[in-house]
Amino acid sequence: MSLVECVPNFSEGRDRDRVNRIRDAIASVDTVKILDVEMDPNHNRSVITFVCDSSKAVDAAFAGIKAAAEIIDMDAHRGEHPRFGAADVIPFVPLQDTKMETCVRLARDLGKRVGEELGIPVYLYAEAAQRPDRSDLAAIRNKNFQYEQLKEAIKEEKWKPDFGPSVVGKAGASIIGARDFLIAYNVNLNTSNMEIGKKIASAIRAKDGGLTFVKSLAFFLKDKNMVQISMNLTNYRKTPIYRAYELVRLEAARYGVLPVESEIVGLVPEQALIDVAKYYLQLNGFDEGNILERKMEKAANME
Amino acid sequence: MSLVECVPNFSEGRDRDRVNRIRDAIASVDTVKILDVEMDPNHNRSVITFVCDSSKAVDAAFAGIKAAAEIIDMDAHRGEHPRFGAADVIPFVPLQDTKMETCVRLARDLGKRVGEELGIPVYLYAEAAQRPDRSDLAAIRNKNFQYEQLKEAIKEEKWKPDFGPSVVGKAGASIIGARDFLIAYNVNLNTSNMEIGKKIASAIRAKDGGLTFVKSLAFFLKDKNMVQISMNLTNYRKTPIYRAYELVRLEAARYGVLPVESEIVGLVPEQALIDVAKYYLQLNGFDEGNILERKMEKAANME
Repeated sequence: MSLVECVPNFSEGRDRDRVNRIRDAIASVDTVKILDVEMDPNHNRSVITFVCDSSKAVDAAFAGIKAAAEIIDMDAHRGEHPRFGAADVIPFVPLQDTKMETCVRLARDLGKRVGEELGIPVYLYAEAAQRPDRSDLAAIRNKNFQYEQLKEAIKEEKWKPDFGPSVVGKAGASIIGARDFLIAYNVNLNTSNMEIGKKIASAIRAKDGGLTFVKSLAFFLKDKNMVQISMNLTNYRKTPIYRAYELVRLEAARYGVLPVESEIVGLVPEQALIDVAKYYLQLNGFDEGNILERKMEKAANME
Repeated sequence: MSLVECVPNFSEGRDRDRVNRIRDAIASVDTVKILDVEMDPNHNRSVITFVCDSSKAVDAAFAGIKAAAEIIDMDAHRGEHPRFGAADVIPFVPLQDTKMETCVRLARDLGKRVGEELGIPVYLYAEAAQRPDRSDLAAIRNKNFQYEQLKEAIKEEKWKPDFGPSVVGKAGASIIGARDFLIAYNVNLNTSNMEIGKKIASAIRAKDGGLTFVKSLAFFLKDKNMVQISMNLTNYRKTPIYRAYELVRLEAARYGVLPVESEIVGLVPEQALIDVAKYYLQLNGFDEGNILERKMEKAANME
């Protein structure tokens, strides 16, 4: 068993029945476990999180994309979030011992099938990108360039899809790729000064000279009267949570500001938390095989 | 499924074949998973760690005690560690959602069977103790009072067993009980001064005014030229690892001494490490249900 997570985003966030039909299409594939279905009516967008064996991941994602193409008409779709298609973005994420290369291969296999069998234009992004200008999702589709703009632009060489026809139908286009597990992590500070918040957010993010796998923004939390440093940790193995937390603390200290609490939004792999414990306790020789639950699992597998 | 761990200690640590026969007797019971078998030739003693469903725990431990009683002759046994019997100490430990009361009941059920069916005197200890002078294992058997002394003393009221006859046969007596999961945790310091080590060990242990569920001693590590504060954390839910570590650090600081590294010896429940991460990151509202692996397990159970 080689585990893969897939987090497809669909352009329907208001009609529960239609979202359930997409979910059921995915869930009908062998080994699939649906972990979460999140509908956002403002964005008119849903995120379905599932895990499955890597050998079934293309089938499962394809089933979801096919159902979405049948159900969603992009000419009728309105919502705040930028989007290209009915099945908008479909990233594969390696779990446990699965390699990134496996997910890159899955993305390309899926892209080929979606292009050929469904006639939907496909753009490969992130680790699966085949052109440097498609590594960054925001450089592909954004507020200023989405479904409506792509319809015209797809004839241009710059917008030639990686798979499928250079024609945009009612299902729009799909952006398929592979990326590492993303941890949404926020630290709240004992200040309401957004100037300080912006300086801290800038100091820690990759773009401005901070940590390589950190994206960050400062927000003001009205109900708590606090500044929040909101982060995406895009590779928790290389930029672990404790390093992001400690760097926020370090930068905050120069303004006499302290962290009050932090929070993880959504799912977090167990190992990311174990790594935090290992750091603070200086457990430098720790063998994860001695975690009771892992030992039990191993004993179970040996039977 | 209500999980229980059991860590029986047997008075045979040199003959692998005999230890394996005891292990196999335990392993033959349904739901049992053997996690570890540790033989100590100096102490001439083995520790077998297994987990199983609570409904099978008495059967499994009984099978081990019966095998040990057939295999081991206490009149022929020599070794450094104090001991009462062939199956010397048998603690049940609650895992996950299992309650301590369940383990107390298991200890008493097992004690009754061992006393009645095997004719072995049984003393209930720790949480399962029925007399206050039997709460502490070291007050029952120790360097000065073991198998040889018990043979005579068992006729006295003080030594009347909780179950079984007031006669010690070649299998000796067994000490059966229930206790919380024990984490063996050491912190190594950048000093070779044992005077400092002893002061720190004293400051943090329950007996001398430290943390309620900490037992500690200072050792000198010759190969590292370092003092080690060696701890038993006897209730990691109430006295978590981070608190023990931080108190060692705090007490060491007054001598200008710092922790160099720490280590967990043997098994540790995952939750004990998650609790460390939650403390240091100030993850005060964290929901363990959002750990990816737990979410997956839950999704699997729902099928």
